[in-house]
Amino acid sequence: MPFKEGDFLLIEHTAKVKETGKIFDTTREDVARSEGFHKEGEIYEPKLVVIGEGWVLKVLDDNLPSLSLNKPKTIEISPDKAFGPRDPEKLRMVSLRRLREKGITPKLGTQIEYDEKLATIRTMGAGRVQLDFNPPLAGKTLVYEVTAKKKLRTQEGKIHALIHRRIPLLEIGKFKLDLEKDDVVLRVPEEAFYIEGLQIAKRGITTDIQRFFPAIKKIEFVETYLAPKKEKAPKKTSTKKTKAKRTSTKKTPKKKPVAKKKPLSKAQNPK
Amino acid sequence: MPFKEGDFLLIEHTAKVKETGKIFDTTREDVARSEGFHKEGEIYEPKLVVIGEGWVLKVLDDNLPSLSLNKPKTIEISPDKAFGPRDPEKLRMVSLRRLREKGITPKLGTQIEYDEKLATIRTMGAGRVQLDFNPPLAGKTLVYEVTAKKKLRTQEGKIHALIHRRIPLLEIGKFKLDLEKDDVVLRVPEEAFYIEGLQIAKRGITTDIQRFFPAIKKIEFVETYLAPKKEKAPKKTSTKKTKAKRTSTKKTPKKKPVAKKKPLSKAQNPK
Repeated sequence: MPFKEGDFLLIEHTAKVKETGKIFDTTREDVARSEGFHKEGEIYEPKLVVIGEGWVLKVLDDNLPSLSLNKPKTIEISPDKAFGPRDPEKLRMVSLRRLREKGITPKLGTQIEYDEKLATIRTMGAGRVQLDFNPPLAGKTLVYEVTAKKKLRTQEGKIHALIHRRIPLLEIGKFKLDLEKDDVVLRVPEEAFYIEGLQIAKRGITTDIQRFFPAIKKIEFVETYLAPKKEKAPKKTSTKKTKAKRTSTKKTPKKKPVAKKKPLSKAQNPK
Repeated sequence: MPFKEGDFLLIEHTAKVKETGKIFDTTREDVARSEGFHKEGEIYEPKLVVIGEGWVLKVLDDNLPSLSLNKPKTIEISPDKAFGPRDPEKLRMVSLRRLREKGITPKLGTQIEYDEKLATIRTMGAGRVQLDFNPPLAGKTLVYEVTAKKKLRTQEGKIHALIHRRIPLLEIGKFKLDLEKDDVVLRVPEEAFYIEGLQIAKRGITTDIQRFFPAIKKIEFVETYLAPKKEKAPKKTSTKKTKAKRTSTKKTPKKKPVAKKKPLSKAQNPK
């Protein structure tokens, strides 16, 4: 086997429904575009998978060790190992009037939310609509084409990939790592300071590093702010002016600050 | 003058309307309780004011240098130096029906939002309601009783107070400071990791430190995660089990993680 459990692989994949040939998922931007489900803001690139971690469907995970670099492998997955069989009990007829009352205008083949569950509109006619509460891929045999693009070998490369998995919006490698034997310092780049969910991502990165590199006992995240270089120190005699200037030249994020800016009731909009 | 511009003071204050004697603002929990406007979760404690920074009404700011420690001073503020005169143009009659259409049931003396502005209900009768768009304290003479409780003298104490001002929910002094001549390392306590707005607060703390201590050229925030001590390193042969255990013993915050946890379409709810 070219690969083994615990290996860090970057994987490309494209998945389709066997019966129809319809592609429903891909890591490749060109495929997403040509199939018409490309989403702006979505990141298309090979994804990190650690073999045996259960990050992907089990059949896929089991097949990863036998991949060869850059050689696509086709893996067929029967419904019972994918999204389960299609359950006829999960079909339900409702009146068109009832849907309309809920503000839903049904359209054949589309998904709607009904009673807080997702349903697909299967048939329509004579004022009645058939809702299918099965997952859209239930009962389908899936065909994955999977390619291992790269095997990560260094601890540093693996940690970078783990960070990127938790903060996909940030280009890989933007954190600077100071790796020692039993600790690591992760220098957070300024452009990541205001990414939503940063603190949760840090927790996730920590969990990942502790899991895959148990020798690392201490993980430190460091965020550095340097004094703006060309500004003069504020003068005592012109406090207000200097303050205004300093504020206006700063790229202040729009979110509400935690602190009350004006204690002693100035916040109440005095003249 | 006991104090001067740039001094860091911890100030207690209680403010009332001169004409009625009604207290509308205080830093003291006992006063807030006895006046009936105590709010759960609000932090009642002396507040940091740096003299001359404009953090409080100008008349108050101008009076701060003449305070003496622990001696309350009464300061009267005329309407023009507080919330401005009351403007009769800002009174408006609307029909009760119109308010009802907007889902508002008016009650004498209460504040409502109307056309995205705050208004006080002044009179009601014969199907008509008078709305007052003046700030509630417009036209009022205010009487502040202000007490300087403490003057902060050390750079460390001042930085702690600036941090507390930006993250009032966190007890003062919880950050650990490594202060050098031209840089400071701020060690964020674990209990602050998931405080909402932490990143914005860091930016604010940075701005404050750069303003008041221009000699400090570099500010670093450090968040440290230590490996859990009593857990064994995960064994290769029982990956799943170990993982489950590690996860369950961890206090995971409830917010949605940034990363997709299940790439390769496992997120689509497979069986």
